Amino acid sequence: MTVRVGVIGVGMIGADHVRRIGRVLSGGRVVAVSDVDPVRAAQVARAAGGARVHGTGQDLVADAAVDAVLVSSWGPTHAEYVLACLAASKPVFCEKPLATTQQDCLQVLAAETAAGRRLVQVGFMRRYDAAYRALKAVVDHGSIGPPLLLHSVHRNASVPAHYTSDMSITDTAVHDIDISRWLLGEEVVAAQVLRPRRSGRAPAGLSDPLLVLLETGSGVLVDVEVSVSIGYGYDIRGEVVGETGTAAIGDGGGVVVSSAGQRSSRVPPDWRERFAGAYDLELQDWLDAAAAGTCTGPSSWDGYAAAAVADACMAALASGERTAVSLVRRPGIYSE
Amino acid sequence: MTVRVGVIGVGMIGADHVRRIGRVLSGGRVVAVSDVDPVRAAQVARAAGGARVHGTGQDLVADAAVDAVLVSSWGPTHAEYVLACLAASKPVFCEKPLATTQQDCLQVLAAETAAGRRLVQVGFMRRYDAAYRALKAVVDHGSIGPPLLLHSVHRNASVPAHYTSDMSITDTAVHDIDISRWLLGEEVVAAQVLRPRRSGRAPAGLSDPLLVLLETGSGVLVDVEVSVSIGYGYDIRGEVVGETGTAAIGDGGGVVVSSAGQRSSRVPPDWRERFAGAYDLELQDWLDAAAAGTCTGPSSWDGYAAAAVADACMAALASGERTAVSLVRRPGIYSE
Amino acid sequence: MTVRVGVIGVGMIGADHVRRIGRVLSGGRVVAVSDVDPVRAAQVARAAGGARVHGTGQDLVADAAVDAVLVSSWGPTHAEYVLACLAASKPVFCEKPLATTQQDCLQVLAAETAAGRRLVQVGFMRRYDAAYRALKAVVDHGSIGPPLLLHSVHRNASVPAHYTSDMSITDTAVHDIDISRWLLGEEVVAAQVLRPRRSGRAPAGLSDPLLVLLETGSGVLVDVEVSVSIGYGYDIRGEVVGETGTAAIGDGGGVVVSSAGQRSSRVPPDWRERFAGAYDLELQDWLDAAAAGTCTGPSSWDGYAAAAVADACMAALASGERTAVSLVRRPGIYSE
Amino acid sequence: MTVRVGVIGVGMIGADHVRRIGRVLSGGRVVAVSDVDPVRAAQVARAAGGARVHGTGQDLVADAAVDAVLVSSWGPTHAEYVLACLAASKPVFCEKPLATTQQDCLQVLAAETAAGRRLVQVGFMRRYDAAYRALKAVVDHGSIGPPLLLHSVHRNASVPAHYTSDMSITDTAVHDIDISRWLLGEEVVAAQVLRPRRSGRAPAGLSDPLLVLLETGSGVLVDVEVSVSIGYGYDIRGEVVGETGTAAIGDGGGVVVSSAGQRSSRVPPDWRERFAGAYDLELQDWLDAAAAGTCTGPSSWDGYAAAAVADACMAALASGERTAVSLVRRPGIYSE
Repeated sequence: MTVRVGVIGVGMIGADHVRRIGRVLSGGRVVAVSDVDPVRAAQVARAAGGARVHGTGQDLVADAAVDAVLVSSWGPTHAEYVLACLAASKPVFCEKPLATTQQDCLQVLAAETAAGRRLVQVGFMRRYDAAYRALKAVVDHGSIGPPLLLHSVHRNASVPAHYTSDMSITDTAVHDIDISRWLLGEEVVAAQVLRPRRSGRAPAGLSDPLLVLLETGSGVLVDVEVSVSIGYGYDIRGEVVGETGTAAIGDGGGVVVSSAGQRSSRVPPDWRERFAGAYDLELQDWLDAAAAGTCTGPSSWDGYAAAAVADACMAALASGERTAVSLVRRPGIYSE
Repeated sequence: MTVRVGVIGVGMIGADHVRRIGRVLSGGRVVAVSDVDPVRAAQVARAAGGARVHGTGQDLVADAAVDAVLVSSWGPTHAEYVLACLAASKPVFCEKPLATTQQDCLQVLAAETAAGRRLVQVGFMRRYDAAYRALKAVVDHGSIGPPLLLHSVHRNASVPAHYTSDMSITDTAVHDIDISRWLLGEEVVAAQVLRPRRSGRAPAGLSDPLLVLLETGSGVLVDVEVSVSIGYGYDIRGEVVGETGTAAIGDGGGVVVSSAGQRSSRVPPDWRERFAGAYDLELQDWLDAAAAGTCTGPSSWDGYAAAAVADACMAALASGERTAVSLVRRPGIYSE
Repeated sequence: MTVRVGVIGVGMIGADHVRRIGRVLSGGRVVAVSDVDPVRAAQVARAAGGARVHGTGQDLVADAAVDAVLVSSWGPTHAEYVLACLAASKPVFCEKPLATTQQDCLQVLAAETAAGRRLVQVGFMRRYDAAYRALKAVVDHGSIGPPLLLHSVHRNASVPAHYTSDMSITDTAVHDIDISRWLLGEEVVAAQVLRPRRSGRAPAGLSDPLLVLLETGSGVLVDVEVSVSIGYGYDIRGEVVGETGTAAIGDGGGVVVSSAGQRSSRVPPDWRERFAGAYDLELQDWLDAAAAGTCTGPSSWDGYAAAAVADACMAALASGERTAVSLVRRPGIYSE
Repeated sequence: MTVRVGVIGVGMIGADHVRRIGRVLSGGRVVAVSDVDPVRAAQVARAAGGARVHGTGQDLVADAAVDAVLVSSWGPTHAEYVLACLAASKPVFCEKPLATTQQDCLQVLAAETAAGRRLVQVGFMRRYDAAYRALKAVVDHGSIGPPLLLHSVHRNASVPAHYTSDMSITDTAVHDIDISRWLLGEEVVAAQVLRPRRSGRAPAGLSDPLLVLLETGSGVLVDVEVSVSIGYGYDIRGEVVGETGTAAIGDGGGVVVSSAGQRSSRVPPDWRERFAGAYDLELQDWLDAAAAGTCTGPSSWDGYAAAAVADACMAALASGERTAVSLVRRPGIYSE
């Protein structure tokens, strides 16, 4: 079954989700969009291959041809659209925040609880990141003992001039808040925020960096460096300190475990794991070209040349000698 | 347009491609399968949601409901099916090898050239690996100067008892052969194979490890360590040595460049790049649950708890004090 | 000139300093020792090749044959001995702490200031560590902009049962306090200490780990994780966060700089830097053996074998062929 | 006992050894030097604090005040001086090469064997490098199984215009030859040298890079990349491939072991190991300053300030509050 998706709010991130559902993922189709900017909505609808344009998010939710709704509009509108989806019993994906007040969040909880089943997913995408998943697996496995501390680093190269210190919490640190709850499997019970020396690169009025300190129910202490004017790039790190060792997100997506006198990371057991992403991209590339009646990746010429070199290698293995490879002329359709 | 795919050969890798097209990728649907084992074919066809089962690969190719063909059958049968696809003007994805003899490869080249356009893609998936792509980008950019050497390492934990030294070339080193041609952008003109001390872990009769040496047209020397009994895991590495520096695939998928007195790797510029994979998985997870009328990822409760902690952080930022967080009771539908 | 050194307190660390001055360093000789345990003092004096044993530290300081004094006795005695050295105008190396009270420290400052020149060195050895020196060089060079934060990690595998939380400060965190002042080039003006969830591995009564927070005069915030029961090993880390990048002590002694979209470390320019330590050890080893009239390192046989292989390589370079190496029989004095 | 050392040849490396024996190491004193350039000899003799200058190396060897001889003159003169030392029964350290012909090497072997005991050490300093020692320890321990391959990389930023391809063997690869013999514990029985594409940065006439292939008695294959015009720096690497894993010299001096599904490096067990080098430098610095009647490292002020901050931390630990630190004014003798 193909899920017919309506998207409310097709700015940068909403439009990217439309592309993702249409071109990358399986099992969904964008059939309706809405946006405060009707021109923008029409453009994205066309790019999606002919989705319907609704004048309001409420209309989109009410559309019988829409099975599920993705809310990526302006934060203050989220609660209203999510509640509408709950009223219509339609699964809804809501980008963070779920709502801009706790009161509105509680209304959503009440409506969903009344519905009796989960219908809302909030866009805390870090839980789907390979590195964080591997980190959680190590922690849950008990390899480093019970967690005592979590060091988190959240750095952005820069922020727009209108960025405020509250946004450093609600737009930036909120990801570290969610990931802390998820990694540690418990709630945060208290918070403290320290203001280190202010960066000369921070926009006027912005207190940057910040050091956010969180305590969980069992006493685990989380420290989060929030730096949003660091210039050099986007840098996300995390290290859980347990009773007998630590586990950290390393550069490149793996987890580095310090335990029993060793600092170690995992080597994949086989090619399936190592090249899983490559297999996906390879076949997607082929499907995309096949839809246009052609092919684009490694060609018959590449298959032939590899065979010729492999033959030379086998001869060389048998003889122990340097062995020449000779190829026929490369036909024009295989020119690079 | 959805590409209707027929899959010839649904053993381990073929069945995995069927799953991939049905559950992960966009724009394709498996409508037909065939296999030497009809029971296996029927199972996979059912799992694919009702694909047709053909008695032979030739029948599958001829099926008018099949737009494009994926060949993942036994190697010696590849050429025959690829030629049938070319005769039918259908795009074909062929797992390596394209053919088991150069003569058969040349027949494919002739048929495709006669067709006048690319219709064949060969399954050299490394070209789609993020690490190899980043490596090629660095080399092509000229950051390390013209390439002089390529060190390649290809290690497998173990191989079955029937594995032969020729298979170390055709099944294993062939990936290094292809990636060498692709990374360096030129053909291999000669080969030599050395036999280091034999591993006591190698199956009887197998010469393992091997050191394969390849020379390209311009004289670049490629050395490939092929170790297929190394025990500890699957380990793939590559380092291109240029005139002014080197670029290597690092652990975790990045590229490490040695240049101008520095060893360096890239920090992503923003969250789009860093969490691209997470966004894909997140929405796929949502679509999968929505198809079943529910939701599974971060919940409304998570949205509420994050809002409550963020509120406490903003109060703490304003007051400078430790600030308690209090949450309502967690409704049962959000229990973990 | 050889400095004639007297050592007060020859327990584990004092005895190690005696060994160091006698066997490793240049320009010093241990001529006198004292210890609360006279048997221990006599043993170390003998091992030092015949140093004089004094009944008290004060006697040792007064000994006209002692040019300079090393104080490695019990902490509460440090101030008294340092003051005696100042009174005698003798340079003194004092292991930390300089004194156990600020009042005693101030007495030392007064006495040294009265002397009009530096005569006291305190044993904060981290300032001599290659990694910390490289880190300071990067910070001072301005490569990462003005410092804003310093993350410090100080982990010990375990501590004795009598270890107290105050000792986590005075014996452990004191190194991070000193290195913070030195790296940042300014004084600490305030401190806060947080108690994360207590490790089940900590001795009874010990609050472990701790998170120590320090503020410098300009507002730089230092966070120090002090974990003294972590089990897995001794792990020291530091990362300075500046306005445009960060610099961190990496594993193995180098500095990793995150700046301008890159994470990078330094490659040495030449062999002098890379093998400086090896040259020192090599010649020390030779001197030690020569003192006994013999030699122990790479032998004439090694010189001969290397020459024979090099000759074969040159022949192979000229011929392009595999070239055999033949060696004479190895004489017995070179057997391994 | 202090070994009285005579140094033959005080060019760049010889003069550095004179400095090393006089200022860094323990147990030796340079009492005599000679050089083909008498002005240079006189300068170095003075810098050494008044060594005698001999007109010839033979005179230096004959000097009764010389206990042991260090030969760092021009390679072709080495054998003659080493033989003179053997005739005089004096321990001799000879920089590589031991001799420029195998015939001369054999003469040395004969003379030393006649002497009946080791008197010659050859300057293969890599055997004293911490990283290579750790690598050998891992290999000898059996952690990766019996060795099968050794990958070695030897890169220099640049070489002078007169550098020849033979010097790439005798001056550069010779270190890899020695370290291969030492790491693997067996002799090399055959060699082959391949010429990859020539670097445009190589001086005229120089074949650079080279790939040197060595085989040991048991069949272990060693491949050595020799690149002497690589520009970016001096880069030395080595990886031993065993039957069940590999061990490689990592950046920064540690060893990275790939074994049993993990890539790991060692965490030191305690501060003694981690800061061993810092303790040496710290005390050497103190001795050097003490010889001049003063002190230079961490001062009494640093001891006082650390005590004041530690007191504030202990108060903060007890109170849970942010606690101010106040210091007296810094006396002028401690100004930075």
